[in-house]
Amino acid sequence: MLIVQKYGGSSVANAERVFNVAKRILATQKEGNDVVVVLSAQGKTTDGLIAKAKEINPKASRREMDMLLVTGEQQSVALMAMAINALGGRAVSLNAVQVGIETTNTYSNARIRKIHSERIENELEQGNIVLVTGFQGVNMLGDMTTLGRGGSDTSAVALAAALNADLCEIYTDVEGVYTADPRVVKDARKLDEISYDEMLELASLGAKVLHCRSVEVAKKYNVKLVVRSSMSDAPGTEVKEECKMERMLVSGVAADKNVSRISVLGVKDEPGKAFEIFDLMAREKVSVDIILQSNGHDGRQDISFTIGQEDLDIALKALEENKERLTAQEIAHDENVAKLSIVGAGMATNPGVAAMFFEAMYDAGVNIEMISTSEIKITLLIPRKDIDEAMIAVHDKFKIASVNMRKD
Amino acid sequence: MLIVQKYGGSSVANAERVFNVAKRILATQKEGNDVVVVLSAQGKTTDGLIAKAKEINPKASRREMDMLLVTGEQQSVALMAMAINALGGRAVSLNAVQVGIETTNTYSNARIRKIHSERIENELEQGNIVLVTGFQGVNMLGDMTTLGRGGSDTSAVALAAALNADLCEIYTDVEGVYTADPRVVKDARKLDEISYDEMLELASLGAKVLHCRSVEVAKKYNVKLVVRSSMSDAPGTEVKEECKMERMLVSGVAADKNVSRISVLGVKDEPGKAFEIFDLMAREKVSVDIILQSNGHDGRQDISFTIGQEDLDIALKALEENKERLTAQEIAHDENVAKLSIVGAGMATNPGVAAMFFEAMYDAGVNIEMISTSEIKITLLIPRKDIDEAMIAVHDKFKIASVNMRKD
Repeated sequence: MLIVQKYGGSSVANAERVFNVAKRILATQKEGNDVVVVLSAQGKTTDGLIAKAKEINPKASRREMDMLLVTGEQQSVALMAMAINALGGRAVSLNAVQVGIETTNTYSNARIRKIHSERIENELEQGNIVLVTGFQGVNMLGDMTTLGRGGSDTSAVALAAALNADLCEIYTDVEGVYTADPRVVKDARKLDEISYDEMLELASLGAKVLHCRSVEVAKKYNVKLVVRSSMSDAPGTEVKEECKMERMLVSGVAADKNVSRISVLGVKDEPGKAFEIFDLMAREKVSVDIILQSNGHDGRQDISFTIGQEDLDIALKALEENKERLTAQEIAHDENVAKLSIVGAGMATNPGVAAMFFEAMYDAGVNIEMISTSEIKITLLIPRKDIDEAMIAVHDKFKIASVNMRKD
Repeated sequence: MLIVQKYGGSSVANAERVFNVAKRILATQKEGNDVVVVLSAQGKTTDGLIAKAKEINPKASRREMDMLLVTGEQQSVALMAMAINALGGRAVSLNAVQVGIETTNTYSNARIRKIHSERIENELEQGNIVLVTGFQGVNMLGDMTTLGRGGSDTSAVALAAALNADLCEIYTDVEGVYTADPRVVKDARKLDEISYDEMLELASLGAKVLHCRSVEVAKKYNVKLVVRSSMSDAPGTEVKEECKMERMLVSGVAADKNVSRISVLGVKDEPGKAFEIFDLMAREKVSVDIILQSNGHDGRQDISFTIGQEDLDIALKALEENKERLTAQEIAHDENVAKLSIVGAGMATNPGVAAMFFEAMYDAGVNIEMISTSEIKITLLIPRKDIDEAMIAVHDKFKIASVNMRKD
């Protein structure tokens, strides 16, 4: 088998953990597999580099940030190669340029366009374990790019797709995908299986176990994906097209505190105004999530939306500069919000789910500011201070539900 | 003018120093120059990375060491770009792959084969200051290489040659080239000028102010080279083909503690044995310095030579493995030695210089173990514990000499 493994930053944070991972990699090879490994930067390396950059230039260009940050993963792969060699194995480290991981030009949030497989295949043929820097690529200018935080998952899945690997294992510090964040909700249960679509919703809603785009790529190329712990031999959670297990009404709860709300108030009630606002955000590469448009009165209306907290400054600046053109009377924002979401393929056919969700919030005394729904998820924007309590309340509510309201 | 500047690790060790250098670079550009800057890794970054590697694998492969170490310079150039941008300037950072600094395949001690100038020229045309990672290149396999410690000097001079720059300034933490190490010898004087040949001897003998190969490249391509301080505006030392100043008998004294002696004892006195030993060292990429071959007796002879301390393990291992073929009776070594050298273009025509050198050693009570001479230098191998005292004695001796024995 050809197996792609990905280990996160905490799994390689120090020399002892590097050796633990090295042993796991060697054991995988010893079972007769070809092994390609994607690594993140060690522990807090990336945070340290960001702090260094902020000290020098809080508005550092994204190009230079990428040039700086990609060094973290390169250090990881070189050190891991040394550890594997020290244990008698044969390994070679490669960065994104050496592999040929081509991305779009967008610094700090690039997307993979193409992965060249020749170099990796050559190294595998020579019996080497191949260690590849996660999170990064090279654009058409020959410059370094990064895939956004958590992008190493995407690197791993994209490599698995490009190499036509039999399995992609994402190693993390939890044992798999849980029904809710186990650090907050004590009763959270590990799932043995989850579908791509459910995982996609969970990931996009802030469940940090898998990077959102990695699930999209896995679904698109039908990559067999397993999330498991680097600290144990537990089997983890398999992410796949169809789940054999009984369908749960709600398979998971996710919270995301990295969110801010912007309200563009008193916009003239004319066609195209919403388009102008979101076109402006797109130009600034700001991803917009929940959108709420008020009913107009006196010929004016309010348009509110949520964005990632890191984009708040950029978004506010762009809106203020274009306030007149957008006919806005005021640009307001709120940083003290969070998103709480429930996900489940069984949801679409059970109209009672939303009501139960709202009831759980009411019981917990949590105010709902915005609502967004899709086929398989419901997201609420609530005050950030209430997020942990709300998460526990929802989990309790649907744990009961999942016993009472199973399909089949 | 097109100016290439190089700043060492201590000049960019923290945010404050990075800004100092950024201001100097901007001032150089403001005077109407195109500026290309070569940077080393910040402060103790490289040492820190080496320590990390040693913890994991004391015998780490040179390829993986290079992969690890090149990240230090990449961080430096990215941070400097951010600093220049913060001050309102325009800068772009480039690593060796982006520039196209092609080297030989030898990891950890590669030589530059070719530098592509297109990318840098394009960036300069757009008004950018171009920041280039020192110390590194890319080989024919597309893998990262390093040029050996201090290789950033060579990067700067080679870039100056490739770009046909008008001037190459090497910024360091001393004010220029001194007659001896000013930290050891209080009376050491700064030289205003020095010839390539004298600088070359000084550099190869352990004067750390310039990397040896950088001087070779400067001489070969006739690069106008200035060594000066990043902390002051003093004019520094100019390194050039011919010095206008009066020729000093001895222009400098240099000490090198990074040296070990190996003795191959009792080798059969047959033709080709010396060749076999040094061919073996060359295969292991070990540079041999002073060589001493004893007069044979009983059909056997001893061959001693000095090497850099970092190569001792490799050299001993290779010699032990080939002991039988080399017909050696014993392989001995001594780590407690150091090299002391005097350099001066005036030396060749003054037979009294060597005698004065030996006299200084005799007066200081220092034992001489080996002697090596060239047209413009004399090197002695002495006990390491005596090196500072010996250096002061020699400097005192020739300071007097330089008054008494000047050649017009």
